[in-house]
Amino acid sequence: MKCNEINVRVRYQETDQMGIVYYSNYFVYFEMGRIEFLRNHGISYAEIEKENIFLAVAEAHCKYRAPAMFDDLLVIKTCLSKMKHARIEFCYEIRRNNEEKLIAEGTTLLACLDINRKPMAIPEKVKNALM
Amino acid sequence: MKCNEINVRVRYQETDQMGIVYYSNYFVYFEMGRIEFLRNHGISYAEIEKENIFLAVAEAHCKYRAPAMFDDLLVIKTCLSKMKHARIEFCYEIRRNNEEKLIAEGTTLLACLDINRKPMAIPEKVKNALM
Amino acid sequence: MKCNEINVRVRYQETDQMGIVYYSNYFVYFEMGRIEFLRNHGISYAEIEKENIFLAVAEAHCKYRAPAMFDDLLVIKTCLSKMKHARIEFCYEIRRNNEEKLIAEGTTLLACLDINRKPMAIPEKVKNALM
Amino acid sequence: MKCNEINVRVRYQETDQMGIVYYSNYFVYFEMGRIEFLRNHGISYAEIEKENIFLAVAEAHCKYRAPAMFDDLLVIKTCLSKMKHARIEFCYEIRRNNEEKLIAEGTTLLACLDINRKPMAIPEKVKNALM
Repeated sequence: MKCNEINVRVRYQETDQMGIVYYSNYFVYFEMGRIEFLRNHGISYAEIEKENIFLAVAEAHCKYRAPAMFDDLLVIKTCLSKMKHARIEFCYEIRRNNEEKLIAEGTTLLACLDINRKPMAIPEKVKNALM
Repeated sequence: MKCNEINVRVRYQETDQMGIVYYSNYFVYFEMGRIEFLRNHGISYAEIEKENIFLAVAEAHCKYRAPAMFDDLLVIKTCLSKMKHARIEFCYEIRRNNEEKLIAEGTTLLACLDINRKPMAIPEKVKNALM
Repeated sequence: MKCNEINVRVRYQETDQMGIVYYSNYFVYFEMGRIEFLRNHGISYAEIEKENIFLAVAEAHCKYRAPAMFDDLLVIKTCLSKMKHARIEFCYEIRRNNEEKLIAEGTTLLACLDINRKPMAIPEKVKNALM
Repeated sequence: MKCNEINVRVRYQETDQMGIVYYSNYFVYFEMGRIEFLRNHGISYAEIEKENIFLAVAEAHCKYRAPAMFDDLLVIKTCLSKMKHARIEFCYEIRRNNEEKLIAEGTTLLACLDINRKPMAIPEKVKNALM
């Protein structure tokens, strides 16, 4: 399975009054992970949107194992777990830098859409880059 | 199954450059739904946190069926789907006001935690209010 | 001066670990206030964007007088303070419902832009509706 | 004037349907800039909060010169512009990496608060580190 890692420093804005990272922010970290995964495989998501290829989230899931805190340096591990005709699934694991303990893990299923938000086959150049 | 509905107007801030509501925001709508579900059953979540009872998200899931747009008036339907010793599961459906079509549906599993973030039994007064 | 008031319930997501509303969120409340101000004067901002009229923020300012908390019911008062050829200034005051004490006050200067993000005169129909 | 620079990659989540970074997000970038400015001068803001020293925003201002876009690599320049008994002012400039053109500039005034949110003198160790 192809994987990729990025570091993200937790922002004050991302905490809530429980003193931990608010739960929806993990999905933002996931998005950052997959953007860099794509870049790492030669695909600029900013560029492919300009060619009217959109990867829209069809499904998202996260399990929260332990809280992340303000100023934590997180490692977001992103792996390509499935690729079908018109859909790509990524899975993610989030840890603190240099720690084994899992903070969160999740998946997102992305649908490839055209300019009219209709499903389309993943273009060959994207497929080839990711395989 | 006990259910509750609230209206949420989509904010400009919640859209992204795809012209639709960014995917993590649905989890914020879910949270608003469950806060009002609790209030509707006599429980102010703000108050119970002051008594050192915390409901932290342990797992979250969402299926995106159709995009929500800026200025849409959404209906967030929140239902209590399971209640165990120390965990509560809510499920959600999001539609545009007066439309049948599902925009998104999801679930969140909440763990009841004490001031030290240790799991605790859901207090009787909360349990009784919700049953 | 023309003014308008809306209510906003503080979301858990909007708090930070200081236990208060994170400072950038007041600008989101300001935006909600001006969208409803416009609607109140017969202008749907969603509609005018479809006609390629954009109101982009050129300058924003906020003074924080007292903290807003989770679950507070806020009143956002929005007033049109200036309207020039291509610019509109709104000013805002935020209070808790039924309280005199000011929580925050601010201004935003909006520039009217065309589809190419070039400044344009505020269309007559917008001007007339707001005057 | 003491200054500091950090890089921030624009997240998809930070864009809005105008296709540019939503205006309140610049204040989040400012916060990131000042956290790293402090760290650069030997102060971990996470640590000083644990010692019950809080820097709360009392006033914030931003001028938007040009839009930032998804995936832009921004440079946030943070300078300490004033330090008084109980208040610190930072000013900021945001540019695209390797570009002269200003995207946004702003200021934030921070009040030093104790655990009860009462103003307190900036502790000597903070003052000395920043001077």
